Amino acid sequence: MDNRPIGVFDSGIGGLTVVDALAKSMPLESILYVGDTARVPYGNKSKERIQQYACEITDWLIKQDCKLIVVACNTVSSLALKKIQEKFNIPIIGVIHPGVMAAIKVTKNNRVGVLGTIATIKSDSYGIALREQIPGIEVVGRACPLFVPLVEEGWVNGPIPENIALAYFDSIKESRIDTVILGCTHYPLLNSTIKKVLGETVSLVDSGVATADIVISVLNDLKLFSNAKSRSIKSFVTDSIDVFETLAKRFVDAPINSIEHIDIT
Amino acid sequence: MDNRPIGVFDSGIGGLTVVDALAKSMPLESILYVGDTARVPYGNKSKERIQQYACEITDWLIKQDCKLIVVACNTVSSLALKKIQEKFNIPIIGVIHPGVMAAIKVTKNNRVGVLGTIATIKSDSYGIALREQIPGIEVVGRACPLFVPLVEEGWVNGPIPENIALAYFDSIKESRIDTVILGCTHYPLLNSTIKKVLGETVSLVDSGVATADIVISVLNDLKLFSNAKSRSIKSFVTDSIDVFETLAKRFVDAPINSIEHIDIT
Repeated sequence: MDNRPIGVFDSGIGGLTVVDALAKSMPLESILYVGDTARVPYGNKSKERIQQYACEITDWLIKQDCKLIVVACNTVSSLALKKIQEKFNIPIIGVIHPGVMAAIKVTKNNRVGVLGTIATIKSDSYGIALREQIPGIEVVGRACPLFVPLVEEGWVNGPIPENIALAYFDSIKESRIDTVILGCTHYPLLNSTIKKVLGETVSLVDSGVATADIVISVLNDLKLFSNAKSRSIKSFVTDSIDVFETLAKRFVDAPINSIEHIDIT
Repeated sequence: MDNRPIGVFDSGIGGLTVVDALAKSMPLESILYVGDTARVPYGNKSKERIQQYACEITDWLIKQDCKLIVVACNTVSSLALKKIQEKFNIPIIGVIHPGVMAAIKVTKNNRVGVLGTIATIKSDSYGIALREQIPGIEVVGRACPLFVPLVEEGWVNGPIPENIALAYFDSIKESRIDTVILGCTHYPLLNSTIKKVLGETVSLVDSGVATADIVISVLNDLKLFSNAKSRSIKSFVTDSIDVFETLAKRFVDAPINSIEHIDIT
């Protein structure tokens, strides 16, 4: 048993959908969340810079005595996961591999779509990981850069997000794909719109939910589950807490016990 | 006469619309542009952080021997212009005051709309500056956070940007406004869509164009015009040049002679 918290981090607020998935499936685990809001977004930044940010935040979370780290950011998981796994002596789980394993379970025709930021799609991390599992699997990636601001605006249903999704999903729909990975932590909030536009024949894989399943199995293997009577969820942001506080409730159903500013750089 | 370059900076790529306006109205002036792409966007960051960034970039431009600095960023002009004007001994021009003076010339009914990022609208900088000029003037601000990703996606015409503009302009249209300030450097690329949705009775004020007019008059007053035979436009970005290079052509018609990476922090 280990009652220390799970550390979770993302470039901004989106990783709270992963916190939501963790909180729902593990009601006794405390969570420390870092949103690097001073430096968001990571999606248009270089690999070297993202690796530097990831090292700084991981180091901070370890100093807060976390027992396991979840990289709740597709960009960091794509570009910096290996780097921090090599550098730090603690279990670190990204969102790419869990999403890939879940998609492979779901697809029947081995045609998988991936939605994500420009950086995630450009890196082809999901494609590479999918082909490692099933050589010859067909992967169609589509960057959807308007989805994040749509979610932050709260426009997740109705004609505006539907028309944008229609424009983005042209190539996905033509490719007779049966499974689509939501490869960005903001996207689960657009779940119903994405489902509506893609149609009932396409299954959606939420990387956050898939990641929570992997975290459960790692905690189980390493005997790191908490047996605390209650748990807390604490958020830390690198810029002002105002905007974060307003938006956070949309991303995570469980109550967030505190939101604090921290300086990591 | 002074053949040193004009320094221009913005949080990212948007300030190139100001470079475009400067380049068109002053064909002999060389320009050094800094896009702080490693730390973009500024719109959701705190005042203290934006002031720190503005000082660092201004200092860098002065070290490159610029004769005058244009802050081609509404967020910096709102939150950090006074700070850098006090700190550095060089003419520094923001985009708020020129936009305000142009709007006052254009409006006939003293009802002015302002479109901008969340931070610019929240700061009410345009409103404060407008009321300083005309007490009692009616100002209606509207944050349009989807406009920047729309422009960067290249979706500047057609039903998607028009429907988004329609959703944003509800309050503007109800207020019988006759003049609207484009208070974000990306927005001039949406000019025709914004015009179409607002209708012919509303005049648009491009802060970048208004700023170029003020720069001309300052260079004239201080006898700082260039008499060089040719000029150059050089861009410097704080993150990788790839994305910047692809997008830059949409923002500025004049050829950009070079794009280089710099490290300011």
